[in-house]
Amino acid sequence: MKVFVLGGDGFCGWPTSLHLSAQGHEVVVVDNLSRRLIDVDLDVDSLTPIRPIEERLEVWKELTGNEIRFINLDLAQEYERLVDLFIKEQPDAVVHFAEQRAAPYSMRNPRAKRYTVDNNVTGTHNLLCAIVETGLDIAVVHLGTMGVYGYGWSGSAPIPEGYLTVKVPTPDGELDREILHPANPGSVYHMTKTLDQLLFAFYAKNDELRITDLHQGIVWGTQTPETALDERLINRFDYDGDYGTVLNRFIMQAAIGHPLTVHGTGGQTRAFIHIKDTVRCIEIALNNPPNRGDKVSVFNQVTETYRVNDLAELIASLTGVEVAYLPNPRNEAVENDLNVTRDRFLSLGLTPTTLSEGLLEETRDIGLKYAPRADPSKIIARSVWKAGMETSADLMR
Amino acid sequence: MKVFVLGGDGFCGWPTSLHLSAQGHEVVVVDNLSRRLIDVDLDVDSLTPIRPIEERLEVWKELTGNEIRFINLDLAQEYERLVDLFIKEQPDAVVHFAEQRAAPYSMRNPRAKRYTVDNNVTGTHNLLCAIVETGLDIAVVHLGTMGVYGYGWSGSAPIPEGYLTVKVPTPDGELDREILHPANPGSVYHMTKTLDQLLFAFYAKNDELRITDLHQGIVWGTQTPETALDERLINRFDYDGDYGTVLNRFIMQAAIGHPLTVHGTGGQTRAFIHIKDTVRCIEIALNNPPNRGDKVSVFNQVTETYRVNDLAELIASLTGVEVAYLPNPRNEAVENDLNVTRDRFLSLGLTPTTLSEGLLEETRDIGLKYAPRADPSKIIARSVWKAGMETSADLMR
Repeated sequence: MKVFVLGGDGFCGWPTSLHLSAQGHEVVVVDNLSRRLIDVDLDVDSLTPIRPIEERLEVWKELTGNEIRFINLDLAQEYERLVDLFIKEQPDAVVHFAEQRAAPYSMRNPRAKRYTVDNNVTGTHNLLCAIVETGLDIAVVHLGTMGVYGYGWSGSAPIPEGYLTVKVPTPDGELDREILHPANPGSVYHMTKTLDQLLFAFYAKNDELRITDLHQGIVWGTQTPETALDERLINRFDYDGDYGTVLNRFIMQAAIGHPLTVHGTGGQTRAFIHIKDTVRCIEIALNNPPNRGDKVSVFNQVTETYRVNDLAELIASLTGVEVAYLPNPRNEAVENDLNVTRDRFLSLGLTPTTLSEGLLEETRDIGLKYAPRADPSKIIARSVWKAGMETSADLMR
Repeated sequence: MKVFVLGGDGFCGWPTSLHLSAQGHEVVVVDNLSRRLIDVDLDVDSLTPIRPIEERLEVWKELTGNEIRFINLDLAQEYERLVDLFIKEQPDAVVHFAEQRAAPYSMRNPRAKRYTVDNNVTGTHNLLCAIVETGLDIAVVHLGTMGVYGYGWSGSAPIPEGYLTVKVPTPDGELDREILHPANPGSVYHMTKTLDQLLFAFYAKNDELRITDLHQGIVWGTQTPETALDERLINRFDYDGDYGTVLNRFIMQAAIGHPLTVHGTGGQTRAFIHIKDTVRCIEIALNNPPNRGDKVSVFNQVTETYRVNDLAELIASLTGVEVAYLPNPRNEAVENDLNVTRDRFLSLGLTPTTLSEGLLEETRDIGLKYAPRADPSKIIARSVWKAGMETSADLMR
């Protein structure tokens, strides 16, 4: 099928584009390169030496014979161009990664909060509106986040895949009603994904758009079989305080012999998935779209859960570095359990890559190999959730 | 108290500004006059002869001695000016009406859909972000809509005021959980108010903003004691296919001897409130804000419910015109019941104005009096919810 990958130059978008291309799909990368621009703005860089998008695509064509085209387009700002493009290209599906995706960045300052809301909501709405305007039957696969659910809401019940059936009291007894899991976002970024959910629900109901929303955990790992073909295809690895996720921070710190910085008690449980599984999940979702008139199809895109301090201990035991406990910049519960339903992808054939299998390789082939490129001063988180909160940077002054 | 009324030149905003001023509050109207600009764009006009905002405010000062200042500011586009204004003026509260508020307009075409989402979401988020940035304790009163709830979701249970407690199944039995009433918006406009709810919930939780959300029914009536003081203070009356609500359409049609156009079977039940009660509700809400750290305070701002064809029959019996049944441009259930909880305002002293008391006066003092200003060709709805739906205009060609 012909697939547009919106945000196809980013951390998830790039390996997804290559994977879909390798599977024989016609892929068009649509991206405004905003992720690279934010790197410039934050004065940070991917640990891995990522190449310009045009060079990446030339290398891919050289090595595989598969052509991926690139279109520089800002989804939130260039609505008319998007409509023209849909009419001209008639894609079968769109994978939508084109959102600001870092929670700490989204809490950094008013400019970043506003950019995150405006870019993500306007971009998603433009996409939906353009599909309706063209009248084309373009399936949408969107990258959501586990963060829409929050933590601990369901007690001992596992977090369902999008929907749950609750009992509503009425004068005549109780009524069973299926609801979208209540939204409990922990940051402005996560909030935008809960807004997306309502946009999707409306356009699925009113216009019968076919939409899949994938609530992903924290992605770890850098390479997929396709990005590993040539160093010029390498995927990005973020380790800075805003874009680096917990596992990348630990890997980076281990590689440079710095103590692993745990925010808070480390009792927070998080959900994880390897980037190799992400790209497979996207393809499974593309091959299993909902029908017209169906509600939004929701998958939990998660393979494992880990407590942050267990993760730190695991990496400490692999590498010999220490663990350091720092103030938590997030406004969140000190500890939480996390029990996630993930039956849908497993039943469609996903065989997960586990942390215990892949972590050593990741530390060796990415962390240690590229450690000389790292700027250790960028690792520490400086964004805080509320004015006046203490940061790790404060503590280390 | 010092109150900013965002959207203070509009249909609800203008009489609210006068009412608050009459009660002794210091009122500042903040508005970009977008409602007047949309009139120009749609080539329609208020039935009543509304005066320019500066003239309105001069007349108010002449008659009462109360000064209301006006600031022309676009909430969605001029964030920095808003922050500067908050710092300089230090308002105690903001009443937020500054959103595109017509469901048919929001479904009119891609431009109107996108304007509605971008303007409403960005405006609301800018307001919340600016309050956090300044660190001021500014209470927010926002005009929501009954449309966030949809129709028929709760079966025979009355629609609650914002929240309901449901039973969630868990492996250890059931868990009682309070949730925001699930969102079931019927148009892009209504959808934006469900997005607002999630913005409010996040900023109430993360930043302890004090926020009240008022889920209002269809407002009818034109004048309040303050706007009726002088014809130069008169409130707007919309009767066009996009901005005219069902009751205004009927009043207008009755005034010019046109059959009352019921969309669909007329079995839809709707909630109503008189503009005189709206302005009282806003003041009650301002006087009863939540505390810092409280969840968003939600009121249903509704006094009566009527079935559309009962309303048509009521007006037909008052005026002698016929009732005509036309295709329904909305994507909605043919019939619905509507049972709305409205205890909070009643317990705080609201004494409702009823349709059966006020309708004749409205028809006589507004509909008949200003009928010569009407353009009958503008009354019929032309916006449809989905491409290909038949419109009243089609039927009357």
